[in-house]
Amino acid sequence: MRIVIEPIGTVDSQLTDLALAPRQADEGAPAATLVFFPKVVEGLRTLGVGDDVVVLTWLDRASRDVLSVHPRGDLTRPEEGVFSTRSPDRPNPIGLHRVKITAIDGPLVSVDHLEAVNGTPIVDVKPVLSQDVEAR
Amino acid sequence: MRIVIEPIGTVDSQLTDLALAPRQADEGAPAATLVFFPKVVEGLRTLGVGDDVVVLTWLDRASRDVLSVHPRGDLTRPEEGVFSTRSPDRPNPIGLHRVKITAIDGPLVSVDHLEAVNGTPIVDVKPVLSQDVEAR
Repeated sequence: MRIVIEPIGTVDSQLTDLALAPRQADEGAPAATLVFFPKVVEGLRTLGVGDDVVVLTWLDRASRDVLSVHPRGDLTRPEEGVFSTRSPDRPNPIGLHRVKITAIDGPLVSVDHLEAVNGTPIVDVKPVLSQDVEAR
Repeated sequence: MRIVIEPIGTVDSQLTDLALAPRQADEGAPAATLVFFPKVVEGLRTLGVGDDVVVLTWLDRASRDVLSVHPRGDLTRPEEGVFSTRSPDRPNPIGLHRVKITAIDGPLVSVDHLEAVNGTPIVDVKPVLSQDVEAR
Protein backbone atom coordinates (compact mmCIF):
# COMPACT_ATOMS: atom_id res chain seq x y z
CA MET A 1 0.00 0.00 0.00
CA ARG A 2 1.19 3.47 -0.84
CA ILE A 3 0.08 6.17 1.57
CA VAL A 4 0.49 9.80 0.65
CA ILE A 5 0.15 12.51 3.27
CA GLU A 6 -1.03 15.96 2.27
CA PRO A 7 0.30 18.53 4.74
CA ILE A 8 -2.40 20.76 6.23
CA GLY A 9 -0.06 23.58 7.23
CA THR A 10 3.42 24.44 8.48
CA VAL A 11 5.05 25.40 11.76
CA ASP A 12 6.13 29.02 12.15
CA SER A 13 8.83 29.05 14.83
CA GLN A 14 11.93 30.92 15.89
CA LEU A 15 13.66 27.51 15.92
CA THR A 16 15.58 27.23 12.68
CA ASP A 17 18.64 25.21 13.62
CA LEU A 18 17.92 21.54 14.16
CA ALA A 19 21.08 21.17 16.24
CA LEU A 20 19.82 23.78 18.71
CA ALA A 21 16.22 22.58 18.89
CA PRO A 22 15.23 21.00 22.20
CA ARG A 23 14.59 17.27 22.07
CA GLN A 24 11.28 17.57 23.88
CA ALA A 25 8.77 20.35 24.40
CA ASP A 26 9.35 20.47 28.15
CA GLU A 27 13.04 21.25 27.64
CA GLY A 28 12.71 24.89 26.72
CA ALA A 29 10.77 24.72 23.47
CA PRO A 30 9.47 28.15 22.47
CA ALA A 31 5.94 29.15 21.65
CA ALA A 32 5.08 28.69 17.98
CA THR A 33 2.34 29.38 15.48
CA LEU A 34 0.63 26.71 13.42
CA VAL A 35 -0.10 28.18 9.99
CA PHE A 36 -2.87 26.19 8.34
CA PHE A 37 -3.56 26.12 4.64
CA PRO A 38 -6.82 27.80 3.53
CA LYS A 39 -8.30 24.53 2.28
CA VAL A 40 -8.51 23.07 5.84
CA VAL A 41 -9.50 26.15 7.88
CA GLU A 42 -13.10 24.92 8.12
CA GLY A 43 -11.78 22.04 10.22
CA LEU A 44 -10.40 24.43 12.85
CA ARG A 45 -13.57 26.33 13.62
CA THR A 46 -14.49 24.64 16.89
CA LEU A 47 -11.00 24.74 18.39
CA GLY A 48 -10.68 27.20 21.26
CA VAL A 49 -8.07 29.01 23.30
CA GLY A 50 -7.03 26.82 26.22
CA ASP A 51 -7.67 23.55 24.38
CA ASP A 52 -5.09 20.79 24.83
CA VAL A 53 -4.39 19.17 21.50
CA VAL A 54 -2.00 16.70 19.93
CA VAL A 55 -0.24 18.06 16.86
CA LEU A 56 1.23 15.54 14.43
CA THR A 57 4.02 16.79 12.18
CA TRP A 58 6.27 15.31 9.52
CA LEU A 59 9.88 15.66 10.67
CA ASP A 60 11.16 16.17 7.17
CA ARG A 61 14.83 16.42 8.07
CA ALA A 62 14.93 12.99 9.72
CA SER A 63 16.70 9.86 8.44
CA ARG A 64 14.21 7.14 7.60
CA ASP A 65 16.58 4.17 7.40
CA VAL A 66 17.40 4.17 11.12
CA LEU A 67 16.18 1.32 13.39
CA SER A 68 18.59 1.67 16.34
CA VAL A 69 19.72 4.84 18.11
CA HIS A 70 21.63 5.97 21.14
CA PRO A 71 18.89 7.61 23.21
CA ARG A 72 19.03 11.39 22.96
CA GLY A 73 22.09 11.04 20.74
CA ASP A 74 24.18 10.23 23.83
CA LEU A 75 26.88 7.81 22.67
CA THR A 76 27.51 6.70 26.27
CA ARG A 77 24.01 5.18 26.40
CA PRO A 78 23.46 1.77 24.82
CA GLU A 79 21.60 1.65 21.53
CA GLU A 80 17.86 1.04 21.62
CA GLY A 81 15.33 0.11 18.97
CA VAL A 82 13.82 3.31 17.58
CA PHE A 83 10.31 2.28 18.60
CA SER A 84 11.39 2.51 22.27
CA THR A 85 12.51 6.11 21.69
CA ARG A 86 11.18 9.43 20.47
CA SER A 87 14.07 9.90 18.06
CA PRO A 88 13.01 11.81 14.93
CA ASP A 89 15.07 9.30 12.93
CA ARG A 90 12.68 6.39 12.26
CA PRO A 91 10.94 4.78 9.26
CA ASN A 92 8.01 7.21 9.36
CA PRO A 93 9.21 10.38 11.11
CA ILE A 94 5.91 11.62 12.50
CA GLY A 95 6.32 14.07 15.36
CA LEU A 96 3.82 13.90 18.23
CA HIS A 97 3.48 17.10 20.22
CA ARG A 98 1.06 17.84 23.02
CA VAL A 99 0.41 21.57 23.14
CA LYS A 100 -2.02 24.11 24.58
CA ILE A 101 -3.68 26.62 22.27
CA THR A 102 -2.97 30.20 23.37
CA ALA A 103 -4.57 32.19 20.52
CA ILE A 104 -6.49 31.65 17.28
CA ASP A 105 -6.72 34.10 14.40
CA GLY A 106 -8.25 32.48 11.32
CA PRO A 107 -5.68 30.03 9.96
CA LEU A 108 -3.10 30.99 12.63
CA VAL A 109 -3.16 28.92 15.81
CA SER A 110 -0.65 29.86 18.50
CA VAL A 111 0.58 27.18 20.90
CA ASP A 112 2.59 27.29 24.10
CA HIS A 113 5.60 25.04 23.41
CA LEU A 114 6.69 23.23 20.27
CA GLU A 115 10.07 21.64 19.60
CA ALA A 116 9.59 21.36 15.81
CA VAL A 117 11.73 23.66 13.67
CA ASN A 118 10.42 26.43 11.43
CA GLY A 119 8.77 25.12 8.28
CA THR A 120 7.98 21.64 9.59
CA PRO A 121 4.86 20.30 7.81
CA ILE A 122 1.75 19.79 9.96
CA VAL A 123 -0.11 16.54 9.33
CA ASP A 124 -3.00 16.48 11.83
CA VAL A 125 -4.45 18.02 15.01
CA LYS A 126 -6.53 16.05 17.51
CA PRO A 127 -8.04 16.80 20.92
CA VAL A 128 -6.41 15.12 23.91
CA LEU A 129 -8.74 12.46 25.35
CA SER A 130 -8.73 11.12 28.91
CA GLN A 131 -7.72 7.70 27.60
CA ASP A 132 -4.55 9.23 26.18
CA VAL A 133 -3.42 10.47 29.56
CA GLU A 134 -4.79 8.16 32.24
CA ALA A 135 -2.75 5.28 33.58
CA ARG A 136 -4.18 1.89 32.72
CA MET B 1 5.78 18.56 -0.56
CA ARG B 2 4.85 14.97 -1.19
CA ILE B 3 5.14 12.69 1.83
CA VAL B 4 4.94 8.95 1.38
CA ILE B 5 4.43 6.68 4.37
CA GLU B 6 5.77 3.14 4.30
CA PRO B 7 3.70 0.95 6.64
CA ILE B 8 5.80 -0.96 9.19
CA GLY B 9 3.19 -3.64 9.87
CA THR B 10 -0.52 -4.38 10.15
CA VAL B 11 -3.09 -4.87 12.90
CA ASP B 12 -4.32 -8.42 13.49
CA SER B 13 -7.70 -8.09 15.23
CA GLN B 14 -11.01 -9.84 15.58
CA LEU B 15 -12.58 -6.51 14.58
CA THR B 16 -13.45 -6.77 10.91
CA ASP B 17 -16.60 -4.70 10.58
CA LEU B 18 -15.98 -0.97 10.74
CA ALA B 19 -19.61 -0.36 11.70
CA LEU B 20 -19.21 -2.51 14.81
CA ALA B 21 -15.80 -1.22 15.86
CA PRO B 22 -15.80 0.86 19.05
CA ARG B 23 -15.07 4.53 18.53
CA GLN B 24 -12.47 4.62 21.27
CA ALA B 25 -10.28 2.00 22.93
CA ASP B 26 -11.97 2.43 26.32
CA GLU B 27 -15.33 1.49 24.86
CA GLY B 28 -14.83 -2.24 24.66
CA ALA B 29 -12.02 -2.53 22.13
CA PRO B 30 -10.55 -6.05 22.10
CA ALA B 31 -6.96 -7.07 22.53
CA ALA B 32 -5.05 -7.17 19.25
CA THR B 33 -1.70 -8.17 17.83
CA LEU B 34 0.62 -5.81 15.97
CA VAL B 35 2.30 -7.77 13.19
CA PHE B 36 5.48 -5.98 12.15
CA PHE B 37 7.24 -6.48 8.86
CA PRO B 38 10.64 -8.23 9.04
CA LYS B 39 12.49 -5.15 7.81
CA VAL B 40 11.68 -3.17 10.99
CA VAL B 41 11.93 -5.86 13.68
CA GLU B 42 15.32 -4.53 14.79
CA GLY B 43 13.51 -1.39 15.93
CA LEU B 44 11.35 -3.38 18.38
CA ARG B 45 14.11 -5.06 20.33
CA THR B 46 14.06 -2.89 23.42
CA LEU B 47 10.28 -2.83 23.82
CA GLY B 48 9.06 -4.82 26.81
CA VAL B 49 5.91 -6.36 28.24
CA GLY B 50 4.10 -3.77 30.34
CA ASP B 51 5.34 -0.80 28.31
CA ASP B 52 2.80 1.92 27.54
CA VAL B 53 3.17 3.00 23.94
CA VAL B 54 1.42 5.14 21.37
CA VAL B 55 0.63 3.29 18.16
CA LEU B 56 0.01 5.37 15.05
CA THR B 57 -2.02 3.73 12.30
CA TRP B 58 -3.34 4.73 8.89
CA LEU B 59 -7.13 4.47 8.95
CA ASP B 60 -7.32 3.40 5.35
CA ARG B 61 -11.11 3.21 5.14
CA ALA B 62 -11.62 6.84 6.14
CA SER B 63 -12.86 9.69 3.95
CA ARG B 64 -10.17 12.31 3.46
CA ASP B 65 -12.30 15.15 2.12
CA VAL B 66 -14.18 15.72 5.38
CA LEU B 67 -13.63 18.90 7.44
CA SER B 68 -16.81 18.95 9.57
CA VAL B 69 -18.50 16.07 11.40
CA HIS B 70 -21.27 15.38 13.85
CA PRO B 71 -19.29 14.13 16.89
CA ARG B 72 -19.45 10.35 17.16
CA GLY B 73 -21.71 10.31 14.11
CA ASP B 74 -24.61 11.54 16.28
CA LEU B 75 -26.79 13.70 14.02
CA THR B 76 -28.41 15.34 17.04
CA ARG B 77 -25.09 16.92 17.98
CA PRO B 78 -23.98 20.06 16.14
CA GLU B 79 -21.23 19.70 13.57
CA GLU B 80 -17.68 20.40 14.67
CA GLY B 81 -14.46 20.96 12.77
CA VAL B 82 -12.68 17.64 12.40
CA PHE B 83 -9.60 18.89 14.24
CA SER B 84 -11.72 19.18 17.41
CA THR B 85 -12.70 15.52 17.10
CA ARG B 86 -11.15 12.08 16.85
CA SER B 87 -13.19 11.19 13.77
CA PRO B 88 -11.30 8.85 11.45
CA ASP B 89 -12.61 10.97 8.57
CA ARG B 90 -10.07 13.80 8.19
CA PRO B 91 -7.49 14.98 5.65
CA ASN B 92 -4.77 12.66 6.97
CA PRO B 93 -6.51 9.77 8.76
CA ILE B 94 -3.79 8.84 11.24
CA GLY B 95 -5.11 6.85 14.19
CA LEU B 96 -3.55 7.51 17.60
CA HIS B 97 -3.89 4.65 20.07
CA ARG B 98 -2.43 4.42 23.55
CA VAL B 99 -1.95 0.77 24.42
CA LYS B 100 -0.12 -1.45 26.88
CA ILE B 101 2.09 -4.26 25.59
CA THR B 102 1.02 -7.65 26.96
CA ALA B 103 3.34 -10.02 25.06
CA ILE B 104 6.14 -9.92 22.50
CA ASP B 105 7.16 -12.79 20.22
CA GLY B 106 9.58 -11.62 17.54
CA PRO B 107 7.60 -9.48 15.09
CA LEU B 108 4.32 -10.06 16.99
CA VAL B 109 3.46 -7.52 19.69
CA SER B 110 0.24 -8.10 21.63
CA VAL B 111 -1.58 -5.11 23.11
CA ASP B 112 -4.44 -4.79 25.54
CA HIS B 113 -7.06 -2.74 23.65
CA LEU B 114 -7.13 -1.46 20.11
CA GLU B 115 -10.11 -0.06 18.22
CA ALA B 116 -8.53 -0.36 14.74
CA VAL B 117 -9.98 -3.01 12.45
CA ASN B 118 -8.13 -6.05 11.15
CA GLY B 119 -5.60 -5.21 8.47
CA THR B 120 -5.14 -1.55 9.41
CA PRO B 121 -1.60 -0.43 8.46
CA ILE B 122 0.74 0.47 11.33
CA VAL B 123 2.78 3.62 10.80
CA ASP B 124 4.80 4.13 14.00
CA VAL B 125 5.19 3.15 17.66
CA LYS B 126 6.48 5.52 20.35
CA PRO B 127 6.90 5.33 24.11
CA VAL B 128 4.47 7.41 26.17
CA LEU B 129 6.33 10.33 27.84
CA SER B 130 5.29 12.19 30.96
CA GLN B 131 4.81 15.35 28.90
CA ASP B 132 2.15 13.55 26.87
CA VAL B 133 0.03 12.82 29.90
CA GLU B 134 0.60 15.56 32.47
CA ALA B 135 -1.68 18.54 32.71
CA ARG B 136 0.00 21.81 31.81
